[in-house]
Order: sequence, then C-alpha cells, then structure tokens
Amino acid sequence: MKAARLHAYGEALALEEVREPAINGPFEVIVRVGGAGLCRTDLHILDGQLEGRVDVELPYTLGHENAGWVAEIGSAVTTVAVGDPVIVHPLMTCGFCRACRAGDDMHCEKSEFPGLTTDGGFAELLKTSARAVVKLDPTLDPKDVAALSDAGLAAYHTVKKAAQVLHPGTRVVVIGAGGLGHIGIQCLKVVTSAEIIVVDSSPAALELARELGADHVLLFDGAHVAAVKDFTDGNGAEAVIDFVGEGDAIGEAAGMLRRSGTYYAVGYGGTLEIPTIDLTSTELSFVGNLVGTYNELAELMTLAAQGRVRAHTTTYPLDAIAAAVEDLRAGRLRGRGILLPS
Amino acid sequence: MKAARLHAYGEALALEEVREPAINGPFEVIVRVGGAGLCRTDLHILDGQLEGRVDVELPYTLGHENAGWVAEIGSAVTTVAVGDPVIVHPLMTCGFCRACRAGDDMHCEKSEFPGLTTDGGFAELLKTSARAVVKLDPTLDPKDVAALSDAGLAAYHTVKKAAQVLHPGTRVVVIGAGGLGHIGIQCLKVVTSAEIIVVDSSPAALELARELGADHVLLFDGAHVAAVKDFTDGNGAEAVIDFVGEGDAIGEAAGMLRRSGTYYAVGYGGTLEIPTIDLTSTELSFVGNLVGTYNELAELMTLAAQGRVRAHTTTYPLDAIAAAVEDLRAGRLRGRGILLPS
Amino acid sequence: MKAARLHAYGEALALEEVREPAINGPFEVIVRVGGAGLCRTDLHILDGQLEGRVDVELPYTLGHENAGWVAEIGSAVTTVAVGDPVIVHPLMTCGFCRACRAGDDMHCEKSEFPGLTTDGGFAELLKTSARAVVKLDPTLDPKDVAALSDAGLAAYHTVKKAAQVLHPGTRVVVIGAGGLGHIGIQCLKVVTSAEIIVVDSSPAALELARELGADHVLLFDGAHVAAVKDFTDGNGAEAVIDFVGEGDAIGEAAGMLRRSGTYYAVGYGGTLEIPTIDLTSTELSFVGNLVGTYNELAELMTLAAQGRVRAHTTTYPLDAIAAAVEDLRAGRLRGRGILLPS
Amino acid sequence: MKAARLHAYGEALALEEVREPAINGPFEVIVRVGGAGLCRTDLHILDGQLEGRVDVELPYTLGHENAGWVAEIGSAVTTVAVGDPVIVHPLMTCGFCRACRAGDDMHCEKSEFPGLTTDGGFAELLKTSARAVVKLDPTLDPKDVAALSDAGLAAYHTVKKAAQVLHPGTRVVVIGAGGLGHIGIQCLKVVTSAEIIVVDSSPAALELARELGADHVLLFDGAHVAAVKDFTDGNGAEAVIDFVGEGDAIGEAAGMLRRSGTYYAVGYGGTLEIPTIDLTSTELSFVGNLVGTYNELAELMTLAAQGRVRAHTTTYPLDAIAAAVEDLRAGRLRGRGILLPS
Repeated sequence: MKAARLHAYGEALALEEVREPAINGPFEVIVRVGGAGLCRTDLHILDGQLEGRVDVELPYTLGHENAGWVAEIGSAVTTVAVGDPVIVHPLMTCGFCRACRAGDDMHCEKSEFPGLTTDGGFAELLKTSARAVVKLDPTLDPKDVAALSDAGLAAYHTVKKAAQVLHPGTRVVVIGAGGLGHIGIQCLKVVTSAEIIVVDSSPAALELARELGADHVLLFDGAHVAAVKDFTDGNGAEAVIDFVGEGDAIGEAAGMLRRSGTYYAVGYGGTLEIPTIDLTSTELSFVGNLVGTYNELAELMTLAAQGRVRAHTTTYPLDAIAAAVEDLRAGRLRGRGILLPS
Repeated sequence: MKAARLHAYGEALALEEVREPAINGPFEVIVRVGGAGLCRTDLHILDGQLEGRVDVELPYTLGHENAGWVAEIGSAVTTVAVGDPVIVHPLMTCGFCRACRAGDDMHCEKSEFPGLTTDGGFAELLKTSARAVVKLDPTLDPKDVAALSDAGLAAYHTVKKAAQVLHPGTRVVVIGAGGLGHIGIQCLKVVTSAEIIVVDSSPAALELARELGADHVLLFDGAHVAAVKDFTDGNGAEAVIDFVGEGDAIGEAAGMLRRSGTYYAVGYGGTLEIPTIDLTSTELSFVGNLVGTYNELAELMTLAAQGRVRAHTTTYPLDAIAAAVEDLRAGRLRGRGILLPS
Repeated sequence: MKAARLHAYGEALALEEVREPAINGPFEVIVRVGGAGLCRTDLHILDGQLEGRVDVELPYTLGHENAGWVAEIGSAVTTVAVGDPVIVHPLMTCGFCRACRAGDDMHCEKSEFPGLTTDGGFAELLKTSARAVVKLDPTLDPKDVAALSDAGLAAYHTVKKAAQVLHPGTRVVVIGAGGLGHIGIQCLKVVTSAEIIVVDSSPAALELARELGADHVLLFDGAHVAAVKDFTDGNGAEAVIDFVGEGDAIGEAAGMLRRSGTYYAVGYGGTLEIPTIDLTSTELSFVGNLVGTYNELAELMTLAAQGRVRAHTTTYPLDAIAAAVEDLRAGRLRGRGILLPS
Repeated sequence: MKAARLHAYGEALALEEVREPAINGPFEVIVRVGGAGLCRTDLHILDGQLEGRVDVELPYTLGHENAGWVAEIGSAVTTVAVGDPVIVHPLMTCGFCRACRAGDDMHCEKSEFPGLTTDGGFAELLKTSARAVVKLDPTLDPKDVAALSDAGLAAYHTVKKAAQVLHPGTRVVVIGAGGLGHIGIQCLKVVTSAEIIVVDSSPAALELARELGADHVLLFDGAHVAAVKDFTDGNGAEAVIDFVGEGDAIGEAAGMLRRSGTYYAVGYGGTLEIPTIDLTSTELSFVGNLVGTYNELAELMTLAAQGRVRAHTTTYPLDAIAAAVEDLRAGRLRGRGILLPS
C-alpha cells in the first residue's frame, strides 16, 4: 500500500509502497483511512523538534488524526465489525493501568501513538486497537470528522475543563481561531453560555470566528490585552484558552485573566514565564491540555452528528502531501488540511 | 496604645504611641491582640518589595496574622460578644460581591487587609469586621493559634485543593518545612492518606517534618529531584506543594511531577519558567494559592481544638519586634514568630 | 398601602390597607413591588398544608416571588440605590452562618422568607435585605422577571445540578411543563446539550415545551414510562427532573432512570416510596431541590437579559387576586400568574 | 474440584465435585481461592429473594467475595503472573462500554458477577478476568483481605462519596457496625476528619466500633434519633451511612439528617418512604451505593497493606459452609465469615 513516511528529520516525507499491516493480537483493528488530518505537530516532527522527546525508530508513517472504515478485526473484537465507519482515538491504550481504569486514556502508562511512535494514517491502512475506535453515526463521513480526532478532541477536552468556571455572565478569551481554535469556539457555544472573545493575527480567522458565534473579535496587535480588559469591566476574563502557545501570547495571558482565573495551554512551542507572586497574589492557574479521553471523543461525535460542531477542512489526495505541508507552513491552509489516502 | 509602625520602606518599624481605633460602622469589631504572627511577607513589605503592588499610605501598623479577644463591637454585631476569644481572618470583606457570595473571601472585590492596606495587629488593638472573626474554642489560647490565621490558613487551603488528587497510594512533595510547611504537613496527615516527602535545606526542619509524620525527608541539595523520582517508581509525585517559591525550587518542580501532576505555589519570590510543551505534553498544572476562606479558617480552628494541628512558635513581647525581625531574617527563628502586644 | 393578607387557613386572602414597612436596620431595603408571582405554594399555604411546618403568625401578607424598584435603603446599603430595578431573592439571609459563608443562601440558619414567614410581596411595598436584591439590567421589566425569583430560580438551581451528569448524548426527562417546568426546559437548552423528553398531562403544555426546544414530548398517560425506555434504547434516562412531585409521577420515576441515574425532586406533595434494593442495585440517587443561591439568581438574570430564558406569564392587578387564585386552582392559568400591586 | 453449589432456592448449598474451570479467552484468569467471604446477599440468594432479579441458571457455585493466587492466565494477560496473590473485584467487566471507559466498573453494560450470575468462589478455583484482579502486596494474605473485595469495597466506595461533604467539624452517623460497617468506620477514620456516631442493636458491635475509633456509640433503641440530634446541636448530621437498610432504620434516617444532608444506602431489604416535601424543603439526598470501582479496590488494598484498614473475620473450612450460613443467620458470626476452599 501507499504511505507517506519520514526517513530523516529535516527531510520531506517520502511517498512509497509499504507492506500492509496485519492483525497480531486479539484486540487489534485495521482501519482503511478515509481522512487523515495534517497537524502543526507534523511540522514539529518533520523539523526534528520532537527528536529525543518521542521514542520512535525512523522510517515511519506520520498521520495521527484519522478516520475511516474498519477493514479487519482481531479475534476478540466485538464492538465494531468490518465495514463500520469509525473515528480513531489518537492513542492505543493498555486498558489496565490506573489512568486507563479511570478513563484518562491520554495518561495511559503503556500507550502507543500511531503517527508519533508507530506507523500512522498517511497511508491506505492503519493499525490501531479496539479500545481506540469510535463507531460513527451513518450520516458522518470519515474525511469530514477526521480533524476532530486530535485537534477537535484537544479543543473539546479543554473546553470541558474550562466550562467548570464559565457560568452565565463570564468571559473566555480564545487565542487563535485556526485548526484547533475554530472547533474550540463551537464547543464553547455548545457547552457554555460564556461571552467569547477571540484574538487572532489573521482577519480571515476572525471573520470565521464571528460566523461561528464569537461575541467579540480582536486583532492580535498588542492593543488586544487592554481591549480584553475593556470588554471585562477592567477585571479580565475568567478563562483564557491558548490554542497557539507560542511567542508573546503566553506572557500576556496573565494580563487578560481575572483574579482566580485560569489559562489553559493547548498550543505549544513558547515558554511560560511568570513571577510566583503573580500566581499566588491573585490565585491564577496555568493548566496544560493534551488530548481528550475516549468518552470525550464519543461525545464530540454526538455533537458532530447533531450538526453542532463541524471542522472546516481543505482536502488533498495523499499524493499531494508535499503541497499540503507547504500550505500549512505558509499559513495558506484554510481550516484543517485532510489527506485522502483511499 | 502601643504599635509597631512602618514610616518608610527600608527602615525598621517604629514602636510608638498611637490613638486607639474606634467603631465607625455597624459591623466593625475591635480585637485586643493576644498574638500577632511575624511573616516573611512583613520582610517583603519592610524591604519595599510590595511598594506599588499594594495600595497603602505610610505610616501604618504591620501585622496581618492575628488572634485575641473581642474588645468592642458595632451596633449590628450579634455573632461575637465582648470578651470572646477570636482568631481574625486576614481580610475584611464586603460580603456582597460575587466572590463573597460564593464563599471565596480571598477574592472579595472590595476588601481591606489589615497589616497590608490598613493598620494591622502589631498593636494592642486591631480593628476588623464581624465577617472576619472566628470564635475560638475556650481551650485555645489566641497566641497559640495566631499563626494559623494566615500561614496556617494558606497551608490548609492549599492542602484541601491538593487533597482532591491525593487518594491512597499517591505521593505529595512538600517543599519547605518552615512556618507554613510544618503546618501543611500536619494538614496533609489529617486530610489525605498520601505518602509525604518533605524537602528542605535545613536538617532541623527535616527533623521536625519527621516528627510531624513525613514519610520521607530529603535535603534540598540538588540530588533531591532524582531522589523523589526514586521514591515514586520513576514516575514523579501527583502533587508538589511549594511553600518556598523562591530560587531553584520552582524550575525543578516539573521534574518531580508525575503525568497530569499539579504544582501548588504558596511561597513566592522567584519566577516560574516552563516551556509550554512541558505543560501540554503531560498535562501539568501550576496553581497559585493565596489564603483560605472564612469557612476554611473555622475548619482549621476545629482541627486545632481537636489537637490535630498545632503551630510551632517562638514568642516575643511587642517591644522586642526588632529582634524578632532579625531572627526571622537570619533563619534563627524556630517555628513561627509571635508578637505579644497585650 | 394595599396588601393581600391571610387571616385564617382555609379562607380567601383579604385585600386591605396596612401600614407601610419602615427601615429598622442598616442593611434593610424596601422595594416597590412591580410584579409578584402566584405560586402553587401559595395554595398550599391557603389550604393550611404548611401550618405547623412554617413558623408564622397570622395575619400576614403572602407573595414570595417578587421584583420591583428600590424605594428606600438602610444606612449601610451601598450596592443598590433608590430607583434601581431589582429582583428579590426569596430569602433574607444572615450572611454569617456557615451556609451563607459558603454561598448556600437557601440553607441559612437564621433566614426570614417574606411571603412565608413574614410579610411578602402581594402589597405595594416589600421589606427585604441588601443581601437579597439583584440589580436588573435596564432592559428587563420587573413584572416580566418576577416569576424567575422563585420558580425560575428553583428550576435553574436544579438544572445546574443535573448538568453535571448531562454530557452530550445523554437524555433528561422533565415531568411537568408548567410554571417551573417551562423555565426548566429553557435552562436545560442553555446549560446542557442533553436530549430533552417532556412529560405532561396537558397537550397545551406539551405544545409550549415543543416550542421551547423539547426533543420529545409525551402525554402523561401511563404509557409514557415505556415510551421513555424506547427513546433511550431501553436503558432509561440519566436524569429525571420532577417539577410536579405529586401523584403517580414519583413511584414511576425510578422506572425511567438509567443505572446510576438521578431523580431531582422540585415539586412536592406526594410521597416517594422505593425499595432500598432498587436504590443500591443500580446506584440511583434521589435529590431534593429547594431554591437557588443568590449568585444563581444573578446568573439567571444574565440569561434573562440575553433573551435566553423568559417566563411565560399572565398578569392580574392586585385587586384581582381572588380570580388569579381561582385560575391557578382550576388549571386555567397559562404560564405563571403575576400580580401587579403598583 | 470441590464446590458449594445452589441447586434450588430454599435449599442448602450442596458440597460436590465439579469440573475445574478452563481458560477460553485471551484475558481470562483462573484464581486458586484463598478465602471467600460469606455475605448477607448469599442468604438473600439462598432464600430466593433475588430470583427473577438476577439472570442465572441453577445449579451454580456461590461466593462473590474472593481472594487467592493466580493459577492460570489467558494468552494476552500481562498484568499478573501465575502464583501472584490477588484480590478479585466482584465484576468481570467488558472494558468497552461508556461506564467501563469512565472507570465506573460497577455499571458495566455487559458484566458477569461470579457468585451471582456465574460460578463463584465457594470452590477451589474461580474463573475471572484480567480486568478484575488486583495484585496484592506480599505482606497481605488472601484470606485476610477477601472480605474487602465486596463488603469492604462497598463501604470504601460509599465513604469516598460521603467524604465530599465531611469537612472538619461535621458529623456522620453510621448505622450498623457489622460486616460492612466495621470496615466503613475504619475508612471514615482514614479518609475524613468527621466525628463518627455509630448506631447498632448489638452492644458487642458497639464495643468494636469504639475500638475502631467511633466518637460516640448508640444502641439502636428508638431513643437514638433524639440522641443524634443532641450530639449535633439539634441540627442533625451531614451524612448518614446505612449499612443495614432494613426495618425502621430507613424511615428514621431523615430525622437524623441536617439541612442539605445525605443518606447513603448500602444495606438493603427495606423500603424508603419519604414525603417529597421533606426531600425538597431541606434539600435532602438519598444516594444508593453498590460496590466500588477497580481503582477503589486498589486504593483499599493500599490501605490494607499500610495496616489502616483490616477486616475482622471468622474462618471456616469450605466443608463447614452449612455451619457458617447458620452462624450468619443466627447473628453468631463475629466479623465477616470467610470460607477457606484451598
């Protein structure tokens, strides 16, 4: 089968023929990939930023945001059948450690992460586990929801945490209305009744944010911190969700927070630097967010089937992956880029 | 009456005669000070570190950690009577803002903070409000519990937050077994069943930690981060409570945390610096802590009356305040320093 | 001033001239009543059902669901000014007990309840406390929101509790789409994304429920329990909110609940009877609900100002109170009945 | 192998030779039973009270409270090895339904319950699943902890729920200091700092309660409801945990609860009957409790290894099961009865 593989950090992905994956264990599942999202993390991998942080042997196939149809199942699998449309939770989890037993799939002590630590979904077939697949409502097309399996799930997971402090009358600042942020805004509309202030450096992204229901939009231009204060009676917002996590955004977050406010980091790349006196004197919290749980992915698919959350995407045939990577790097990609291997 | 007052940042406190406070509002309460704790924050004030951060006009009386007996009450006060022994919550709160109505006294939008923003308890009499006083069990002596009103309350407040993640089998690292930390350890023993690892640079502090029930003690010597990893099967602890918040301790905290672990900042002075990728990739949280709520102070007084939490103190007559300040600066002070104005 | 007063249980209210209330304490507030809701509890009082359960001396003025304009304030009141439009939380609370300090206003240990234990709002003027009044957005008219101060607040309070178990994909059964229920449905739409199944014996009420966004409506006809099972894949709903609490509804609730489901009682009158084996074998919970907190009333006013929650009402001049009572008893009253004393 | 089997409701268990269980699936585990607790539920089964409520075909082996050593494992089992000492969670769960994925093992949609729905542990060997076994600390003997796998787990599960409302200064009433209750008291001592009031009809049980740390003990003699009120300043307790659930205890529980208090049902047999007005007017809750989660069982084993929780037991060889049943029925059994099949 065809796959887009990484042979060396700093190089482009190679499109090549590889052996099809085979079922080796009772709970394994092979998925025919209907759509595989291209993520900023893929750029970080290509550029070698995760080298040393992630335990993987090159070459391997990237693609950690996948949906498709079940192609083959292990002997003990009863929850899906061949042909079922499914979305794939990013992690293959053990099911036995305390985290798994508590539902915190993303903290499994023995997980694999296809596309990061093993072969991923930039290929016709993907091997995962019965614990990772969520059966899709028949009205949903895998390529339309693929972006929700990682970007969307991280956004939804974070919004659910933030919802705990976002009662009616509160405000939330969303930094970045791109691949993750535009889903996060939709989740906020569904899960909370907070006023939503969106900050982005792109006017087009802000226009999309408006369409999705943002109450206020602000250009990321230096004046936005003061503007947030203005929108919040000088107090700051109860929550800041940072889908960017790079550059100046982080240091400024504290300036947009109300007393006892919380900054939720989703995007990454920069460094948070904050005097401990600013943490303690107003009881701020800085909370990291990875990806959501399996049950959260199932909930998100419910919202997708109900038409309440929709990923904006641009599709590319798998052969055009180089162009997709270029478009993402250049900021030309509207919505999430989705590779179509099948 | 006699009071220890600050006339200029950088100068010593002046012991002088001042006018006694008088009741002006229906809910005001005047307390004869039986004990007033000396806090590292007092050093920060003396040294001018809070200049500009706190809105106060010099000269004024320091002392924000107070207990004593009710000396006079406003016309509408019914919850305490003249002569009652009381501990004084650090904040005079409005009672009407959303934070007050939610019980989050420390986030009151219109509070005063005697000893920081108005005259405090290094004096024979202190003016506070009916909303701030907790009536003491008759077995408790104000000078013995004074240190619990701020240091102890901050420790208890933080421990209650941490308790949410500290089920049986978990580990918590306590950084600093001094004025706050030695109370925090006792609170952890009462409120959680976690294994307690205490880190401090003073062998005497570690000895006290042992007596109070710490399961492991570690010299703060650079090797302690690796030692914590060893005590926790290589995973790190579920929680780190940092009662110091200065120097190298902060940067190292992340290294002692388990996946999805939480660092609770109580002490302050240094700067937290952490790459966002370390926040997100394992879902760490950094949570600031101020002081506790009124109800938490009442709970802490219950624990004190039951003999489960006790502040270790060294007492000084108010006249000896200069010596007390010197002892604190020099690290000679065993336990919390308590001034005895009455 | 004019007031509708109860002289004897079992008798009609007497419309008569009474002395205007006067300010006696620093935090008292007198409100010119712009609208006073008529509640099923008023019928219970008239019929003597609360005799012995409530400590009150006859005669007194009923009316515990009030909104209007501030007419006079005590010497220490700073949070509202004369002329401000306000809604009145049902309870005058002490502000000092543990419940008040935790924000649980409805559990205050020393509260008064105008309209139940002291003179209420079926009168031109009502005496309450600064702790009870929530300032209204200028776009809101007191008579339009009065019904939200008790019926609406109880519904919102309950929905906020239920929201904790109502993630996307869950179902909630609402029993009763009348005075409380029709507000509850709107709150559920705002606060949760659950599927809403409404059961009522009145086709008109079900029609209103549909308009307000109910996903399914069911006549209360004996077949509804099985129908709920059908709508929920045979499992039952995660939550049942019972705004009626009388007759057969209660016994049947357990039959509509999923494993570990919760029944929220708001309405009252009947008796819950359930074998303990049914409680334990599937871990059901039965949770009573009174009225909400002050902060919840403020949140509800935010939702009202945003146009997301609106009480359906029928207004009557105070002189027509006998007709209003008759209409309520006869089931002729559409929406909540609101008396207009001013 | 030898097993004690039920052939007909109303008859005694038959001791007979049966075929040894065999591994059929990749995650199955066979345990050599070191101890199997005898539970009041076994009496209910023998007497036919669960007939129709539980889907099982006679004859089958009872015994749902088991610990022992791993005798054989399925091909995919990696978490335990042959010879490991283990305690057995009562349920064999599917691992794939929403409840399993959230950690709520006891609400698994496709579970088996050895001893209730399939062959249990009154036999030399027991078949269960890798998802059910918790490896024991080497210091623990299976026969000593067997009683913790069901009775103890239910008690711990309930205490963890109750702990959420049991801050310092609160009171909890424990009804019944028998097989479940005596473990519940120990859990309350570890997990909360509440004052513990124990009610039982047996002076010997009350004496044990005292030894285990109960603050007050009361004979269940009709006067105990008033006595609880006395111990709680006339207010009632924040929580009542009912390990009996039969007879008069239930109706009286409401009388011992404080406003917004919670009654936790663990034992069963009687019927809860409460006017809805008593539920709503003070916001009481009635919460059913089944058994705990797998993670809770692991936590409880941590507490057992630390010596903080210990089941009081009387052991019987499997051959003496008839005597054990008689002793339990007659109230002669001190602590939990444990059968020793191996």
